[in-house]
Amino acid sequence: MGKEKKPAVEAQSPTGKTVEELVKYLTDKGLRVNAVGNLATVISRVSTLEEAGPGDITFLSNRKYVRMIEETRASAIILPEPVSGPDRLVQLKVDDSYFAMTLVLELIHGHRKHPFSGIDPSARIDPSAKVGQNAAIAANVTICRNAVIGDNAVIYPGCFIGPDCTAGNNLLVYPNVTVYDQTVIGNNVTLHAGSVIGEDGFGYATHGGIHHKIPQIGNVVLEDDVEIGANCAIDRATMGSTVVGKGTKFSNLIAIGHGTKVGPHCLLVAQVGIAGSTRLGHHCTLAGQVGVAGHIAIGNNVNVGAKSGITNDVEDGQTLLGQPARPIQDTKRQVLMVAKLPEMRDQVKLLQKRIEQLEKKLNGSSTAE
Amino acid sequence: MGKEKKPAVEAQSPTGKTVEELVKYLTDKGLRVNAVGNLATVISRVSTLEEAGPGDITFLSNRKYVRMIEETRASAIILPEPVSGPDRLVQLKVDDSYFAMTLVLELIHGHRKHPFSGIDPSARIDPSAKVGQNAAIAANVTICRNAVIGDNAVIYPGCFIGPDCTAGNNLLVYPNVTVYDQTVIGNNVTLHAGSVIGEDGFGYATHGGIHHKIPQIGNVVLEDDVEIGANCAIDRATMGSTVVGKGTKFSNLIAIGHGTKVGPHCLLVAQVGIAGSTRLGHHCTLAGQVGVAGHIAIGNNVNVGAKSGITNDVEDGQTLLGQPARPIQDTKRQVLMVAKLPEMRDQVKLLQKRIEQLEKKLNGSSTAE
Amino acid sequence: MGKEKKPAVEAQSPTGKTVEELVKYLTDKGLRVNAVGNLATVISRVSTLEEAGPGDITFLSNRKYVRMIEETRASAIILPEPVSGPDRLVQLKVDDSYFAMTLVLELIHGHRKHPFSGIDPSARIDPSAKVGQNAAIAANVTICRNAVIGDNAVIYPGCFIGPDCTAGNNLLVYPNVTVYDQTVIGNNVTLHAGSVIGEDGFGYATHGGIHHKIPQIGNVVLEDDVEIGANCAIDRATMGSTVVGKGTKFSNLIAIGHGTKVGPHCLLVAQVGIAGSTRLGHHCTLAGQVGVAGHIAIGNNVNVGAKSGITNDVEDGQTLLGQPARPIQDTKRQVLMVAKLPEMRDQVKLLQKRIEQLEKKLNGSSTAE
Repeated sequence: MGKEKKPAVEAQSPTGKTVEELVKYLTDKGLRVNAVGNLATVISRVSTLEEAGPGDITFLSNRKYVRMIEETRASAIILPEPVSGPDRLVQLKVDDSYFAMTLVLELIHGHRKHPFSGIDPSARIDPSAKVGQNAAIAANVTICRNAVIGDNAVIYPGCFIGPDCTAGNNLLVYPNVTVYDQTVIGNNVTLHAGSVIGEDGFGYATHGGIHHKIPQIGNVVLEDDVEIGANCAIDRATMGSTVVGKGTKFSNLIAIGHGTKVGPHCLLVAQVGIAGSTRLGHHCTLAGQVGVAGHIAIGNNVNVGAKSGITNDVEDGQTLLGQPARPIQDTKRQVLMVAKLPEMRDQVKLLQKRIEQLEKKLNGSSTAE
Repeated sequence: MGKEKKPAVEAQSPTGKTVEELVKYLTDKGLRVNAVGNLATVISRVSTLEEAGPGDITFLSNRKYVRMIEETRASAIILPEPVSGPDRLVQLKVDDSYFAMTLVLELIHGHRKHPFSGIDPSARIDPSAKVGQNAAIAANVTICRNAVIGDNAVIYPGCFIGPDCTAGNNLLVYPNVTVYDQTVIGNNVTLHAGSVIGEDGFGYATHGGIHHKIPQIGNVVLEDDVEIGANCAIDRATMGSTVVGKGTKFSNLIAIGHGTKVGPHCLLVAQVGIAGSTRLGHHCTLAGQVGVAGHIAIGNNVNVGAKSGITNDVEDGQTLLGQPARPIQDTKRQVLMVAKLPEMRDQVKLLQKRIEQLEKKLNGSSTAE
Repeated sequence: MGKEKKPAVEAQSPTGKTVEELVKYLTDKGLRVNAVGNLATVISRVSTLEEAGPGDITFLSNRKYVRMIEETRASAIILPEPVSGPDRLVQLKVDDSYFAMTLVLELIHGHRKHPFSGIDPSARIDPSAKVGQNAAIAANVTICRNAVIGDNAVIYPGCFIGPDCTAGNNLLVYPNVTVYDQTVIGNNVTLHAGSVIGEDGFGYATHGGIHHKIPQIGNVVLEDDVEIGANCAIDRATMGSTVVGKGTKFSNLIAIGHGTKVGPHCLLVAQVGIAGSTRLGHHCTLAGQVGVAGHIAIGNNVNVGAKSGITNDVEDGQTLLGQPARPIQDTKRQVLMVAKLPEMRDQVKLLQKRIEQLEKKLNGSSTAE
């Protein structure tokens, strides 16, 4: 056991390209590429530094791996600046090397090919629902009354699309996803397996010691180009909408409270939780296991370090860390100071002794007067 | 894209009520209502302060939104005390305004109407299982041998009810829920999509470096009126039962360890985790991402702030915060003191200098003697 | 309501054993057992100290429950050392009493019996897929093209096994699990309900303010004897493999990032999250809600306390706690010191006063000179 994915001749992509073709492709996409080495080298796979073999192109994802370049068996590498390496290794220096690698991956490998097409006879599509052209609706999918789904939808087995949902074109939903009623989904949205969109918000009015359920009559809106990871849960609003903005991407196991508005182009890493009625601006990044309180406003371009807890409004452009979260430098300083507390305690004890000696001396000399 | 839910004439509820009727309804429910304005105003929708339009009733959920009352287009508002506002806005002052809003929401909008009825031919109900009257069992549901389910059950597509499970009346299970064998469910229980009830507890005996699985022969008990959010996971007990007490409500992505007993009327917010064999009293609230250690006892009416970690027994009535959790005032004081550590360090340095000067002086004057 | 699982004569196992037989069984398994009491006592159930009745064997799981031994109604108990107890209670003293209890549980109760067998006609098994002998494939399971599954597989309803997946023998998959394409699974692997294996890693290249999806062409490898809890999410690697090593066990709601390698024989408790490209050695234990940063290396036999955050490499054998995590003694000392900060502040203030008095005195005496 333990067959990890390794280069294999039989798995080589049929879409082999010369380095010259790759350079042209990247240049056409607006990148400035500086290639050194044999441009006729044929590339048929993208791989990691560690696992690459002949015919593979690799890339430098993190500077701590520079030492591995000498040993890689890859034929080409994409990196942000030239390094010393074996002569046979063609180097493609690109400023935005991460984006270049993405484009090459797409060109050579493409995205997932889905294993079904057409509408499976076991799919339950309500007669009042509308599904656009070229749809692939797999076995045991349920699409309820009045749902409207655009063209090119791919819906894997076991998914549930509730009543009155709407979705744009190019919807991609992996297995066992549940979309509650009235959810509004834009174009090019992807939902990974097991995620739940639009469950009731956590709203109860406690009266006489009993928690009375508050009807959650709002919905969830996922704007264009949103991607939601696996096993997330996005509450519908009590009234109005919970919103995930255009181009925002969620990793896995993320919880969003009712009525919260996540701005466009945000990145939420795994296990982030945001309570209800909070607003997040655009281009924010919340690292793993971050928690955000309800009813607060977070600005644009805010970055929050892993495991932080945000309890107050945050201005644009801040980088925060800690629980409670503060500007990252403050938190780092605090962590250092706390680590030095035993030292400070010893200092204080020493000062105390020196003061005692001074007092003894002074009182001695005083009484000597 | 980004069609958020907004007031729309065509979506108006057919169950419009005059403010006078609403006041009567609330009064009949035992609330004291003080209404100021035109009691003949007809209300056909409940909405947020921000999104409300004519014909809508809204409410003040949080005092920080008072300033929005002047601008709201709503026709009526429920609030805990009268405020200054436009004349056309009917004000319903109710002490427990949150509960009043809940009752009005229920009256005007009601709870979700489910999109299916009867028993779908694709549902797999074992001949030995019993399902009560008036059940709605959707497509691709599995109900295993000897399961017994009460009247009025609504089970959405893709759910699995394991062998020997029992459930009371009014069971409501959203799509793709898994209930393992022998789970005991009370009346009026709701399980949201993707949740898993009764998976094996995390029990292994490590012997010779190998983790040997301990059979988990216990079960899970969900008492009456429990509601479980989306994508939760409640471990069955190794022996005996994991219990969620009557009236307790879980938000999403909550993990409960084997043999833990959560008391009645608790509220657990998203991403809370409780390890095994712990006891929680009644009317406890655990905010988001709280963690609780195993084998401890937490009293009644305990409140725990977000992201806290509870590692020891907790007495009744405590309000805790922090990791490790302490009484909230202590933790808040500690946070402040940690923030002031750089200041304290500077003070200590200054004292050190002053002591040095004193020593110099005193030793100088001493030697001068 | 609230029927917890209690001893019941009718539920007694048909496989009753005398204590003498149990002692022989444990001895044959290599354990040293010292039994005191009536060895002819018949045992037909394993139960907790609290809930045990006559005919039950129980065990001491935690020394804090010793006081309950006097009151237990059990007929026998497994414990690590003899204690005083009622004469009728047969005591089996075993060094590794937890493992002994596991063996007795297996002997008397066994593991779960699955409620179906054979291949359900509604299961969708692609003609190109291969399923071994003695398989139980339940309703509404999808097994895609080229998947290869070994003998004795048990796959519960609603599961999805993607294209090109392979699995060894004795695969056990509970309901509504999703396994994405190309996942490689060893022998004796168990996946609990709702888990997702191999969803796309969280990889985007941000270019011009837009997050461009990076094709995730790697896969996930779950080695032999792995057990994954409910509602977990294990990302596929961007390239190469995300790996969970032989014999490693996950609890629920765990998130593993792309390309991470979790070593063999680890225990990950509920809600742990590990970011991408990290390596974890063998026999590590991460307690609940621990977070681990990406691109770091954690050694072997590392133990991490609940809610800790690991941000740097960790050497073999460390026991860590805290956020950021440090050696447990350091963190415990820090917590104590932070709790004593108000005291330290008061000390510093007092020293300040004493210095002022000294200065006054000394300056007074100076000026008096």
